[in-house]
Amino acid sequence: MAEFALDPQIAADSYPVTELKLCTVRLQRDANYPWLVLVPKRADAVEIVDLDPANRTMLLDEIVKASAVLRDTVKCDKLNVASFGNAVRQMHIHVIARTFTDPGWPKPPWGVVPPKAYAPGAAEALAAKLAQRLK
Amino acid sequence: MAEFALDPQIAADSYPVTELKLCTVRLQRDANYPWLVLVPKRADAVEIVDLDPANRTMLLDEIVKASAVLRDTVKCDKLNVASFGNAVRQMHIHVIARTFTDPGWPKPPWGVVPPKAYAPGAAEALAAKLAQRLK
Repeated sequence: MAEFALDPQIAADSYPVTELKLCTVRLQRDANYPWLVLVPKRADAVEIVDLDPANRTMLLDEIVKASAVLRDTVKCDKLNVASFGNAVRQMHIHVIARTFTDPGWPKPPWGVVPPKAYAPGAAEALAAKLAQRLK
Repeated sequence: MAEFALDPQIAADSYPVTELKLCTVRLQRDANYPWLVLVPKRADAVEIVDLDPANRTMLLDEIVKASAVLRDTVKCDKLNVASFGNAVRQMHIHVIARTFTDPGWPKPPWGVVPPKAYAPGAAEALAAKLAQRLK
């Protein structure tokens, strides 16, 4: 059985946040939107429908936990939850805090405006706060 | 307690497929992508995190069922599963069959190309086939 390794593109595009039982949690490198990425630590996982039922239930629980913590930590008007895997095949779930005034609203955030860098230290500070609350 | 009523925009943008225990299932009016929309029949439902645990579990089960049936019914290379609710606030989950040669690949399908009309009768035929398998 292959060991799980985080996809290098996901690693490059995000900051580490914390480890949950199923997922490694990342913060997307885009200050336009507070944006978590949950990656199930299961080698070769691609489709939610192909996870076994226990892992699927755990995934839903962790999506719900991440959603609640993100919404409690940043101001937002709507949560967006999505799993594509078109560009990066390794299963990963986006949990994104949207506001009526964010630069992509009301569209899905991909490709509307280029990613915006966080101010020095800001992503690490947000990641630490989120990690604390995800415990 | 308010009664559930399908959002008129969702109704206008899709064909009826079938009724599951939690969700009413619709086929998006876009022949570019075989595309199901699952709408939980719960008045005022907006965020997955705010569904009670029993409804959340049912939602996951129905997403999985819809994913499996869609993939078994049409050729596809990847499933996309997403819940935004930015433009239409009523909770609805997209389950989309993507192929490497579809007009939006590998992007999320929103706004890449305009929706394409189904040939006369084709959407109804696909909806009937999907409904049969979703039973």
